[in-house]
This record gives sequence, structure tokens and C-alpha cells, in this order.
Amino acid sequence: MRQAIFLISTADRKGLLAAISGFFYERRLNIRECRQYSDSCEHRYFMRIAIEMEASLTRRQLEEEFAGLAAELGLDYSVHYSGDVQNIAVMVSRTTHCLYDLLVRSDEGSLGGRVTLVIGNHPELETAAARFNIPFYCCPVTPGSEPEQEAKVLEILDRQRIDLVVLARYMRILSDDFISRYPGRIINIHHAFLPAFQGSDPYRRAWERGVKMIGATAHYATRDLDEGPIIEQDVERITHESTPEDLRERGRDIERRVLSRAVQAHLERRVIVSGRRTIVFAK
Amino acid sequence: MRQAIFLISTADRKGLLAAISGFFYERRLNIRECRQYSDSCEHRYFMRIAIEMEASLTRRQLEEEFAGLAAELGLDYSVHYSGDVQNIAVMVSRTTHCLYDLLVRSDEGSLGGRVTLVIGNHPELETAAARFNIPFYCCPVTPGSEPEQEAKVLEILDRQRIDLVVLARYMRILSDDFISRYPGRIINIHHAFLPAFQGSDPYRRAWERGVKMIGATAHYATRDLDEGPIIEQDVERITHESTPEDLRERGRDIERRVLSRAVQAHLERRVIVSGRRTIVFAK
Amino acid sequence: MRQAIFLISTADRKGLLAAISGFFYERRLNIRECRQYSDSCEHRYFMRIAIEMEASLTRRQLEEEFAGLAAELGLDYSVHYSGDVQNIAVMVSRTTHCLYDLLVRSDEGSLGGRVTLVIGNHPELETAAARFNIPFYCCPVTPGSEPEQEAKVLEILDRQRIDLVVLARYMRILSDDFISRYPGRIINIHHAFLPAFQGSDPYRRAWERGVKMIGATAHYATRDLDEGPIIEQDVERITHESTPEDLRERGRDIERRVLSRAVQAHLERRVIVSGRRTIVFAK
Amino acid sequence: MRQAIFLISTADRKGLLAAISGFFYERRLNIRECRQYSDSCEHRYFMRIAIEMEASLTRRQLEEEFAGLAAELGLDYSVHYSGDVQNIAVMVSRTTHCLYDLLVRSDEGSLGGRVTLVIGNHPELETAAARFNIPFYCCPVTPGSEPEQEAKVLEILDRQRIDLVVLARYMRILSDDFISRYPGRIINIHHAFLPAFQGSDPYRRAWERGVKMIGATAHYATRDLDEGPIIEQDVERITHESTPEDLRERGRDIERRVLSRAVQAHLERRVIVSGRRTIVFAK
Repeated sequence: MRQAIFLISTADRKGLLAAISGFFYERRLNIRECRQYSDSCEHRYFMRIAIEMEASLTRRQLEEEFAGLAAELGLDYSVHYSGDVQNIAVMVSRTTHCLYDLLVRSDEGSLGGRVTLVIGNHPELETAAARFNIPFYCCPVTPGSEPEQEAKVLEILDRQRIDLVVLARYMRILSDDFISRYPGRIINIHHAFLPAFQGSDPYRRAWERGVKMIGATAHYATRDLDEGPIIEQDVERITHESTPEDLRERGRDIERRVLSRAVQAHLERRVIVSGRRTIVFAK
Repeated sequence: MRQAIFLISTADRKGLLAAISGFFYERRLNIRECRQYSDSCEHRYFMRIAIEMEASLTRRQLEEEFAGLAAELGLDYSVHYSGDVQNIAVMVSRTTHCLYDLLVRSDEGSLGGRVTLVIGNHPELETAAARFNIPFYCCPVTPGSEPEQEAKVLEILDRQRIDLVVLARYMRILSDDFISRYPGRIINIHHAFLPAFQGSDPYRRAWERGVKMIGATAHYATRDLDEGPIIEQDVERITHESTPEDLRERGRDIERRVLSRAVQAHLERRVIVSGRRTIVFAK
Repeated sequence: MRQAIFLISTADRKGLLAAISGFFYERRLNIRECRQYSDSCEHRYFMRIAIEMEASLTRRQLEEEFAGLAAELGLDYSVHYSGDVQNIAVMVSRTTHCLYDLLVRSDEGSLGGRVTLVIGNHPELETAAARFNIPFYCCPVTPGSEPEQEAKVLEILDRQRIDLVVLARYMRILSDDFISRYPGRIINIHHAFLPAFQGSDPYRRAWERGVKMIGATAHYATRDLDEGPIIEQDVERITHESTPEDLRERGRDIERRVLSRAVQAHLERRVIVSGRRTIVFAK
Repeated sequence: MRQAIFLISTADRKGLLAAISGFFYERRLNIRECRQYSDSCEHRYFMRIAIEMEASLTRRQLEEEFAGLAAELGLDYSVHYSGDVQNIAVMVSRTTHCLYDLLVRSDEGSLGGRVTLVIGNHPELETAAARFNIPFYCCPVTPGSEPEQEAKVLEILDRQRIDLVVLARYMRILSDDFISRYPGRIINIHHAFLPAFQGSDPYRRAWERGVKMIGATAHYATRDLDEGPIIEQDVERITHESTPEDLRERGRDIERRVLSRAVQAHLERRVIVSGRRTIVFAK
């Protein structure tokens, strides 16, 4: 059965749960899942509530009536519907591992959305996209051409009604302007356990520092590079025997699973951003 | 501030969340945490709800009024109060590792309860208990004396008003009768990743089978040995180089952390038993 | 530079390391890696030694001379050469996740071998193979036709000079005869943390038992189902919220990474079988 | 049987393994374990070789003869004997968790050494030490008295023939002079996954950054704070629900296990330092 999912955040106070759950109960709507979190440090309240839609209720009705409650209680919120297809654009450079992982999961139907197109600043990954019958757009960058390239990319994203942009080891820095066009809708994978090894060539630096575990971090892209709200991280144990190249190879496995978990959590509407932090209601 | 914690289970249906949260809101009680789980396979609903107690409200009042709601809605429930000291009895044989871990955590105040006494079927661990000024009762078993020994142990537990019995590598099998006297209040640690390697000498058998990870399992004791509802499990990676003795040593670390996590989850009232499964609302 | 890799096992005794390393040093061959393990329980000695080949030395020369040493010392051994392409046949039924993972890694060149062909007892996965330009052979089984089907499969394997057969969620049981034709060269993935949940539908049984972690196991296929020597295992933490279907989905990720690690370890000649156990010299 | 353990490092070249293993074989000494590592980036060779001592061979003889080989081959090395008791001094401030863990493991005989004394810059932890009958020295610091305090500590360490100093959440920075007196023999635990969150209050900063895992790092103390060679690290997954105080509590468990693993690896002579990196030959 199709569900309406509300992601809510507001100042914490008494009665929120009773008021919101009461709203749905009065309409005889079944609550499939209700997850809350009270941030006692910052006195904020967060909720993810999933409601079974009934044939007798239109989306418009539900949204209009909920808007009244939200105004009354001062809720920030968004509403989403399970089963609505989410369109994903994957941006890549030259490495295949994250792209293939997303393509396979999209194909298997386990990603929570559908990879609609792939954009590369190099032509190499066209083959990978073609194998899964996904359109590939090559948008190369030359020195000084960044603004035009970004404009072209944005034009593609807008035209194809993209819901989520995934930077799957896209090795260019996007402008603030670009990022502000898709706020909270661009997910990046950084190939280190942030905040360790921000910036370039983290595996080499991890090797030089002699760490005993390496990791990867998926985060929303923001104006500050590698500083966006973290959605998911993971690590693996390494030994002194691993060369920097071994770390890169091991890292590819961590990167792909961290990125796909983050994308899935976002698309299943399990993530709420709060400043530099995320609330992730795990499945 | 002191909290009242309700652990609730009932048949799943509409309106439970609204009704229960409404009950507390009508009394202007602040909900500190509300966690729910709807078991869609077995159509059961589970809730842990933690309420801040107010000076104006007595426990008796709260309990009487909630009893009315519970009768109306058909709730199975229990109520607990944070800050009420939980008395723990630890039963041991000859190995120190789990006992010391519990004694240290009890002493540090991080266990959610207080180790009140230690019972051993051997005298060896008296020293460990004495170091933390905890009374030690030696209750040896000889062939045929099991019923008297258990009667003696039960007499100690009852007299000292023990809330939770922890079997910290207690190497005797307790009778059904004993277990039924403390239902859902006896936690055992098994030194394997159940259901693998039930029964005796699991590390030797793990070595022989050539597994690549070993584990430990904390579960409520029930009539069926090693079959009780699992509260917590963990594993560690091993290699072919580990001898059975190495596995025993590595296992000790897994056992102590699995057992202490399970005890803490129980004492913080984060566990609800449902048949052979447990709902554990993780912190 | 191309390497010769010797996998050696023998009864443990003094002087083996000196004798074997001396053999290579006398020939002025550089040892790239030398890993040993003395099984103190069973008094066996195992070694993996990787030598840089020199232009002045033919494989035949090296092998003949080493055969002399091996006869003298009573070594069981095999010799392999890095860079020799290993041909992999993947056998599948209907689920794509392990197959895609192997195809992608083969394509990326990180598997240590090349998927040469895919054999399915159902036709569904032809598309997946075709996407990576890999021949797909559909070898269906009907009641009573097992011997003919196996004969047909063996004929394909032999004709294509297959080095390793990977059962990537192949849902049929192979005959002893089939298995004995590729001894130590058939790797299976079992969707549970063996020896827990041997047999069918392990995720359902894991759910019913209420375990807190699920796992997967890659092992060499032997006559005893689910009893072959384990190469690799891994687990993930689950919660009470996971339905059996969620476990299946989570499990797919564990299965694919466990299987590809095992295949890579085998193809990089890092695995020696010793009875029911494996020695895996980790990279 | 008592073992002699040689830790060796040298420039990598052909014949080292044959020469060293030959040396021991000529003397008919059994090699219990031989682990090597060739650092192909820096062209260094490292070995840990454990030999069974024979009654016919004195330590002095063995060491003199090996010194000849080492001079010939240009080996840096140290030699150690299993069974020689290692004396550990634990330096603490006010938190008990790491100290208790070390005391318990020392008492159980699983640490590879013996906690001989505890030094605190505050008096609080005298009780913990006393429980295990370990002398406690209170060496307080007042502004400006650091040099005298360190002199007093050094005097205690020297007098008691301490082999290893463990900083078990000792909240003072030691001077370069102090550290240079015990080179490679001071192990510190940092309560973060270095190089992330160097410096003070890492749990608060981890919370603010919104990381999804926290960790701890055990390293040799060097002149550069938090920059010493890392011996061991570990992490645990956290969620948005964890407060900074929860992180501190969770972190205590990570700290104690990381620290005790590092201490054990050092005392079992499994660690060789190479610049900023460590080679750890895992058991």
C-alpha cells in the first residue's frame, strides 16, 4: 500500500507527538512507522511518520489539512509518497566502481530510485552506462569553461526532472551556485573517514600516517568542500602490508557500499538535515 | 529528572500511538523518548515510552490511571522508574573475565544497576568479589545435591531482593524450576555465535570447523538450554593462526562486552521479549 | 614482474624454512613474499612463497629443480604463475546480485581472474551476462535429468578450460561425481554464517530465532553440503525491525562481498586447504 | 618452552631470509614463528623471528653469535625472551576505565606483562590500584612545577626498572625530554580516530561534526602530540541519538580495548616502528 511520509522538524516541546499522531488518528489513517528524536542539546524535535494512504483521501486533501496543523504547531516539514519514482543523475569522472554499483542496484530495484542518466566530464564511462541502457552525457571541462559546463549540466538535470544528484567519484569541485540549485539533493562520496584526510589523495596520506583502518564518507554537498552533513560512514581494518594501491582497491569496496547506503537512506526519506548533522532513521 | 518507563506490547491496530501519547499529554507530562515497533509478521505492537515524572504526580496515581487505559486498550505492560536501584546477583564458576567486567562497570556506575552479591559454585572468585567489597557466597554442588544447592541460591536471591541474575560463565545447568522463579530476569552468556556451536566447548569446535569469525551471545535463560531469546551478539574476525586457546582468549573479550551490553540494555528497560525474539530499543 | 607462487604443505619439522629459502637464494631468485604457518595442533607446516621469475630461468627448469627439493623434503605443493589468466565459470539460478558483482570485478580487473562464461539452470540471467559480453549457457534441469544436465555442464567446463567454478547462488545440489571432477576448484556461497542455519531458507530461520547479526559463508564445495572448508565469512548487525525480506536484502550485500573476497583469495593463490580448515594468507 | 624473539629491520635485498633462517638452522634451533614484511615503497625489510631456546645454548652465546651475523648483514635488531617479566607503569589522571582494564588483564595474566605501579597526577585512583595491591604514587602538578614532577616520575620509573609506560588517559602533556628518556616505550591512548579530532575534547567535536562512527587510537608517544606511530585503532557505529556524553561512555569501551590490544602487541614483541608507521605482526 502506498505511504505518505512526513519528515518534520521543530522546536522541542510537550504535546507534539500527541498532536501529530492525533491528527492522523482522527482521519482514521494507519501509522506504519513513527520515529522521533529529541535533540536535548539543541532542543529540536524531529519526526519521520509514515502513513498508509486510503482511497478516500487525496494527496491534496491530506497536504492541505496537514498544512493547517503545521502552521499551528510551527513545523518545518516535507511530504513524500512511497512509489513515486525518484530520478537519479550520477556524475562521474573515470572510475567505474561506484557507478556500476548504483547501476546494478537501480536495475535490481533495491536503490529506492532509478538512475535516469549519467553525466561524465570524461567520455570513458559511457560504456558502463550503455550496458544498462542509461543515457550518458559527456560534459567535459577545459580551463575557464567551468561556468558553461555547469550551466550545461544544470540544463540537463532540470530538463530530466532529476530528484537527486550523486557524485560518484566526480573529481571536479562544483561551484556554490551549482550546489545551491539542488540544496540537500546532492550526495558526494569522499574516499576517507572524514574529518580525517580531507582534500586530495587520502589513501596516500593514510598510508603515510600509518593508520590501521581506512574509511569512506557519504555526505550532502555544501559550499564547504568535505564539510557537508554526513549521512553514512564505514571503515575496514588494514595492515602494514597494504600499499597505497592496496588501500585504493580496498577503499573502492568501502566507497561503493557507503555511497549506496546513503543514497538509499535519502531516497527512502530516512534522512533529515539539522545544521551540520543528519538524523538518519535507520531501517 | 526521574523518569517513568513503560514497556508495552499488544495486538497492532490503529490509534495506539495517539491514545497512549494523548494519555500523557492530557496530564501535561513530558515524553522524553518514545520508541515503537510494529511487527508486521505477527501483527504485534511494542512501545517503550519514557515520561518525566512531575512532583505533583505520585507513582501510585500514575499507575492507577495508566491501568485504566491499559485495560481499555488491552495492553500488556510493565512500568519502571529510572533511578530505582536494580540489584544484580552474578553467578560464576572459575573464570574471572565477565565477573570483573561487571564489577568494574557497577563500580563506575555505567551498568544501570549495582552488583549486590556474587554466588560461586567454586570458591576461587571470592578474591575478585572481595576487591570490590561485594559479598561472595560459595554454593558448591556435589552429585545429587543440585536441588539443595539451587534452593540455597534461591533463598539468597530472594532474601537480597535481587532484580536480575547474571550467569557470568556459570558452568552448571539450572533446573526449569529455578529458571521459572526468575522469568525474564536471568541473563546468560554463551561463548559462541548462537545458534552455531550450541553446547559445550564451542571454541574447540569452532577451530575444528575452521570458521573465520567467532562470537558470543547473551540471552535470557529459558528451559531450553541455549535457546532463550537473544539480547545481544557480537563477533570478531580470526585467522587460521589462532589456536583453540587463542580463540578462548579472544572470546573472553567478546563475551565480556556482549554480556555487559545485554545487562545494561535490560536494566535500562530497553528490552521486550516476544516469543523467541527480543525487541531491543538501542540507545 | 611475473611471479612464481608455490603453495606448500608438509609435516612440520626443523629446517624447512632454511632449506626452501636457501633453494631460491642459491638460484639468486628474489623472494617477493614468504608466508608460513605452523599448525601446532596437527604438526603441519604450510608456506606460500612468491618468487620473481628471471629471464634466464624457464618454468620447466624451475619446476624440475623444485621437484627434486620437494621429493627430498616430502613436500606437497602446487606452483602457479601470476599473470596467467584464470578462467572462471559462474553458475547461477535466478538472483543477480552475486553474478553482477563478479562480472563488474572481472571487468575492472580486480578479481584475479576473468569470468569466461555463465551457466544458468534458468534463462533469466542471460541479460546480465550479455551486458558484459559473456557467453551464457542455459542448462535447465527437469526431474530425473540431473545426470544429463551435469554431463552437459561438465562438457562446457572442460571444453572452455575452466580453472574455477563459482556457485553464485546456484540453487541446485551438485552430485558427488560432479564435485570430484573439480576438487578444490568449486567455490559456493551460503547465505548464512555457517555452521548456523545450514540448509534452506536461512534468513527466515534467522528471523525466527531472533539473531542480532546475519552473515554469509564462502566455502569450497565438497560432498557434504554446507560442510566444505570455509574461505571467508562476514556478518552485519541487524535489529528487531528487520523483516525476513529485509534480511534477504541486507544479506545480498554480505553474500556478494564474501564471495568476491573468497574468489580473489583463491585466484591470488592465497588459500591452502587442510582437512576441513583453510589457511588463508591475507593480503 | 622459552623463546628468543628477534625484531629485525634492514634495507631490503636478496638472501636475507635464507641467511637468517640458515643461521638458526645451523645451530639446530627450531623456528616457532617467522614473519616478514618487505616495504616495497621504502625498500625496507622487517622480520619477527621466534626461536625455541635450547638448554645447551646460553643467551650470551646466542646474542654474541647473532651480533656477528647482524654486523655482516647490516641488521638493526633487538632481542627479547618470552617469559621475562615486563614491568608496566600506568600513568593516570581521574578516569578509571583504562586503568581497571589493564589491572584486570595484568591480574589474569593475559597482558604480556605486569602492572608494577600506578602514577597519578591526582589522588583519586589510588583506590583502584589498591584493590589489585598495586603501589600508587601521587605526583601532582601545580603551575610551574612540571619539571620537578616529571623528574620525580622519572626517578620512580628508573628505580622500579619499568619497561613500558602506559598513559591511560593521563591528561597532561609530557615534555620532549621525558619522552626521549623512554623512546618507543611510552604508549598513549587518544580518544579519537586519529588523525581526526586531534587535541582536546574529541567527543564533543565528533558530535558537532555529526560523524557516524567514533574511535580511539593507541600510539607511541613522540615529541609531536597525537602524531606518534599508531599501533592500534578501532571504531564503533553511533547514531544521531547519541549525546556527547553518550559518546564519552561508548568511547570508554573503545579506548580500553584499543589500549590493551596495543600494550599486549608491544609486550609480545609484535611491533616494529618504521618512521611514522608501525609494522604489527598480528597474532
